[in-house]
This record gives sequence, C-alpha cells and structure tokens, in this order.
Amino acid sequence: MGKVATTEALRFMTDCLKAAGARAYPAHQQAELLLEADRLGHPSHGLNRLEYYVNDILGGGCQPNNQPKILKQSPSTAWVDAQNVLGATVSHFAMDIAIEKVKQTGVGWVTVKASNHNGMAGFWAKKAADQGLIGMAFTNTSPLLAPTRSKKSALGTNPLSVVAPGADGETFYLDMATTAVAVGKIEMKRRKGETLPNGWAQGPDGKETQDAELAFNTGCLFPLGGREETSGYKGYGLAAMVELFCGISSGSNYGHHIRSWSHSGEGGSSNIGHCFVAVNFENFAPGFKDRLADCMTHWRNLDPADEKLPVLAPGDKEKEAAQLTDASGTVSYVEQQIKSSSALAERLKVTPMELCR
Amino acid sequence: MGKVATTEALRFMTDCLKAAGARAYPAHQQAELLLEADRLGHPSHGLNRLEYYVNDILGGGCQPNNQPKILKQSPSTAWVDAQNVLGATVSHFAMDIAIEKVKQTGVGWVTVKASNHNGMAGFWAKKAADQGLIGMAFTNTSPLLAPTRSKKSALGTNPLSVVAPGADGETFYLDMATTAVAVGKIEMKRRKGETLPNGWAQGPDGKETQDAELAFNTGCLFPLGGREETSGYKGYGLAAMVELFCGISSGSNYGHHIRSWSHSGEGGSSNIGHCFVAVNFENFAPGFKDRLADCMTHWRNLDPADEKLPVLAPGDKEKEAAQLTDASGTVSYVEQQIKSSSALAERLKVTPMELCR
Repeated sequence: MGKVATTEALRFMTDCLKAAGARAYPAHQQAELLLEADRLGHPSHGLNRLEYYVNDILGGGCQPNNQPKILKQSPSTAWVDAQNVLGATVSHFAMDIAIEKVKQTGVGWVTVKASNHNGMAGFWAKKAADQGLIGMAFTNTSPLLAPTRSKKSALGTNPLSVVAPGADGETFYLDMATTAVAVGKIEMKRRKGETLPNGWAQGPDGKETQDAELAFNTGCLFPLGGREETSGYKGYGLAAMVELFCGISSGSNYGHHIRSWSHSGEGGSSNIGHCFVAVNFENFAPGFKDRLADCMTHWRNLDPADEKLPVLAPGDKEKEAAQLTDASGTVSYVEQQIKSSSALAERLKVTPMELCR
Repeated sequence: MGKVATTEALRFMTDCLKAAGARAYPAHQQAELLLEADRLGHPSHGLNRLEYYVNDILGGGCQPNNQPKILKQSPSTAWVDAQNVLGATVSHFAMDIAIEKVKQTGVGWVTVKASNHNGMAGFWAKKAADQGLIGMAFTNTSPLLAPTRSKKSALGTNPLSVVAPGADGETFYLDMATTAVAVGKIEMKRRKGETLPNGWAQGPDGKETQDAELAFNTGCLFPLGGREETSGYKGYGLAAMVELFCGISSGSNYGHHIRSWSHSGEGGSSNIGHCFVAVNFENFAPGFKDRLADCMTHWRNLDPADEKLPVLAPGDKEKEAAQLTDASGTVSYVEQQIKSSSALAERLKVTPMELCR
C-alpha cells in the first residue's frame, strides 16, 4: 500500500480529467466524487475508476463541457438530459433541482437520461441529507445481474442509496448494489486464488459456482438473496425497480440495451439513466432525528453472536473509514493502483501523483 | 383443500368483521383486501389473517369505526393519523391522498401513524398503478429480523412494494418482505418435518440454523441476503430504510418499540406506521409503458438454467394465480383453515362459510 495526501490525490485526478479535455470545474467535481469513495473505504469507486472516465472523454462518448438541461418539469418533478457530461456534473445539477423542489412541495423527484457513470450512489443521497432531508439516489448500470433462473445477465448491479440525518450527529447511510456482491469482490477472490462462497455468482450453465475464475469470466452475478431458494428473486425485483426509476422512466438506455462494461472508452456514449429523490421529513411527525438516532444506538447495542464482531448501524463502516482518512489526511492505494496511475500520468503528460514518504 | 366461491369468502369475512363491531363499509374494504391476497396466491395474507383482525377489534386495540384524519400537509405530502382503524380503511384514505397530490405536483408521499396491519403491501401500490401511476407502499411490522451479527431481532419483516403499468396489459408487480423469507415458510417446513435451507433463520445463539423447530421458536429471521458473507447487511439496510419511511417518519411505534406479533388481540393498539407514494411517469420520458413491457418480455424469454423453470417477470406468479381464481370463481383453503373458520363463525354467531360441492 502507498499513502497519498488527499489534497494530492484530488490534484492528480483533477489534472488527469483536465488533460483528457474537461474544463477545471467539471474535472474538479468528478475528482471530488472519486476521492470521497476512497475516503469512505470504497476504493472500487475511487481512483480505480479514473482511467475509465478519462477513456470515455478521449473516446468522445463523454462530453464533459456540455451543459445538462431540463426537458420537462412540474412542481415536484424534473426530467433532465445530461448531454453526455461527466456523472458528477449532471448529478449535482439534478440533485440541486430535487432539493429546490422540496422547498416548495415537500418532495423532489428527478430522472436523468444520456448520462455517464456517476460514481458512488451514496454521494448523491448524502448531498440531500446534508441539507436536512431524506436523500435517495438510483442508477442503472451495464448488465451483470442474472434474473432468477436465467443463464444470462439482463440487468445491472443497479445500486440504490438512502441517506438521512439523525440527532447527535448520526447519519443513516445505505448504499448498496442490488446484486449479492460487486464484481470487485469476485476479482479479489480470484487474485487470491480463493473459492467463492455460495450465493455470489453463476457459471455459464446458469448454476451456482464457487470457481472465482469461472465466475469472473461469466460475468453473471446473483441478485441479492442468491438462488431462488433463498429469495434471489427479491434482489432481481429490486434491480428491476431501480431500472424502472432510471432508464425506463428517463428514456435512457435500460436493462439489456446498456452497453457492456468496458474500460476502453469505445462503443460511443453510454446513455445511462439516474434518479434522484429528496423528501422533507419535517412535513411529517416532529422528532424524526431523535427516533433515527434511537434506532441506530439500539442496533449497535444489540448482543452480538460473536463478541469480536459488534453489530453496526447502516453507515458505521463508512464513518470509521472517513475518520481514519481525515485524521491522517491521506488515502492508501494498493501497489497496482499506484503503478497504473503512474502510467496514466505519463500517457496524459500530467505530473505523477506524489506518494507520502 | 376446500374450494369456496370468492363471493362467499368475501361475504363470510365481511360478516365476521361486522359481527366483531365494524360497520359494513370498513368491514367490506378489509375483506376485499384479504380476498385479493387469496386470489393472488398469497394465502398467508388472506383469510388466514381474519381472526387476527377480529381479535384486534374485540380487544379494543383496533377501532374500526373511527375516521382517519390529516394532521399536516403540503402540495406533495401528507401526514395522517389512522386513529386505530382497520388497515384497509386508512390505506385507502392515504393512497387516495397520494393519488390526488400527484395530479398537482407529479408526486404524492403520505405517511401514516396509529395504524393496524394493512395486509398485502402490493394491494396499495397497485391501487396507484391502476390509476396509471408508479405506486409504492411500505409498512413496518413487529420485530422478527435480526440485524446482521445480532442475536436478537430489532426490525420487522418490513415489506416494500412497487407496482407500475406497462404496455400490452403488463403490470410490474413487486411485493417483498425485506427478510430472506416470511415466517410462514419456516412454519411450513416445520410442519413437514423438513430442514431449512441455509440463509433463512438464526438459532438463539445468533448462528444460522437448519432446524425448523428451533428457528420457529427463536423468531429471528435473516434479512434478505442471509449471513454477512452473502451481504445480509443489505437486507438489514432495506428493512431499516422501510422503517425510516414508516415509523421514524410518521411518529408511530417503530423498530424495537413495536409489540410482538400476536393473534390474541391483547396488548392495546399496535400503532404501526405506513408510507404510500405515487409518482406520475408521464412527467418524464414518453414511452414508459413500452420500455417496461419490452423488459418484461425480454426477461421471460431469457434462456433458463433449467428448461422446466422458465424465467419470470416480477408479478407473473400473482398474475397466473389471479387467472386461475377468476376462471374458477373460487379460492381454495387448506383443511385447517376451513376448520378454524368454522370455529370463528360459531364464536361470532355468523353463518359459516359454505364450501363448493
């Protein structure tokens, strides 16, 4: 592992996006989004994704200097055309609209088409929660989830996120793919030469496999819940629900029409869809924040099955990671990540990322 | 199994609720809700629940002839006090408000406190879908779900439902508990003397158990996803999200404060919370219904791992059950259910339910 000052990581990612062709502001917003994932302990969505975004710009599929625009709106809703900008640009644009609408009606519901990967869903839900609201974010993604009983994938990992503020500085933070696990987890098992637990992934015959190599090459993840016997059809239903809110509502690409996952930047614009929701809990019963904090405290204090593994409240892992990052002022990257960043710096003629001594 | 004409089942359930003290209209609405569950092939939420509602009325916890009232509202939101009426009464009341608000703003979001069990969540989401909207319904329930790592339960089975209309008569219908399985499934395995699949339930030590008897007595279901290794924390997060929308928002009882599940009708009012949401997809991209129907057709036509088990779209099982019910004009009940209905008829001095010859 190599340590990098958070300010330096932000500088490097911003410079790379600028070198690829983005203006300073969209480059900075996208880099902030990536850095936050590294800060919260979700490295798959951090610096790890930088090259993917750079390639999308260089390939012409992403046009980072366009302006998203509202196509249609009502007091509580808006339909947005992202115009192929970076995910962070349009997600700020769309969630700002949802937050503005909340002030007038109590709810804001915004769908987006013609967008690109917008990083960690929780970043967008938290944007609304930071304004004292319940925030939600959804996005569709490239097909990787096999509907229950199917040999092939037909939906993405389609994440959903809900974030809300509680009393005493608490934050309820849920950000989850609707597949059983992310592809990155299978990749890690494969690198280590370990077998997979049951319920993670299918082989090409549509049957559960414990072979990490086979699972990685097949690219068919089980929905949350695993096989049919353990209610995998619920995870399939949730992924479909996310698609209903994103591509089916916004008119972007959806489900089986979304291009395959690729780091190459080829294949044109990805035209994926998002959905952003904000709700003002002050419109309901007083005491929301107290009740939320009461639950979070109660859950943490539950008697654990294993003394060494305390019960967590949703968001505790992210909170701990953020505290570690903030205390040290640094983020850590695996060796391979640092190497590929150096190569990217050279390719883009950008000052390489400086490691802490 | 015994067959009963749907009209006779509706008559019987209405009569029982009236005999317990409900006026004709609320009794009829609640009976319709129960019959629909039997019609869609979810008998756990049908006639099976009748005695529970009757006991709640007789015990005084449910006051079926009260009137729900709006406590606070904004253009897109309403906060409702159910005044302890039957679940169907307030759920019609609240979803009607959500549907009305959609017309003005594009979204309606209504939370309810001081309510009772409101049957199948899908019934309420479908009420909005029948008006050409995306409908959603959520409710909290008595604690039965063990948060990941915990020995004890602290959240309910907290179902969520999303229903939406597609082209060609399609209906996307998702109605799912956020636990891995419902208690009823464990009860069935126990009766048959079968072992449980992994990922369903915990024993009193907080570890996974395959012993149906032990699981039934412990009453700690795994969240959707099962153990931590297979991402059970996501199902826990989803159950917590439902609680955020229901009890935490509405100020009803919530999470660990909800009374235990009981059929006795003792223990006062249950004061549970619901949430109803309606969204007008016409406010976004044209073609919503076509895209939805395209997905549902695509999913059904996916190559199955097992030729005998075709891939289903969310709602296909319910649609098939409804067609069978409608074609025959009858619903079928297990022997035990028919016996307990006879006993209930005698207890309430109601004409017993007549079986088809």
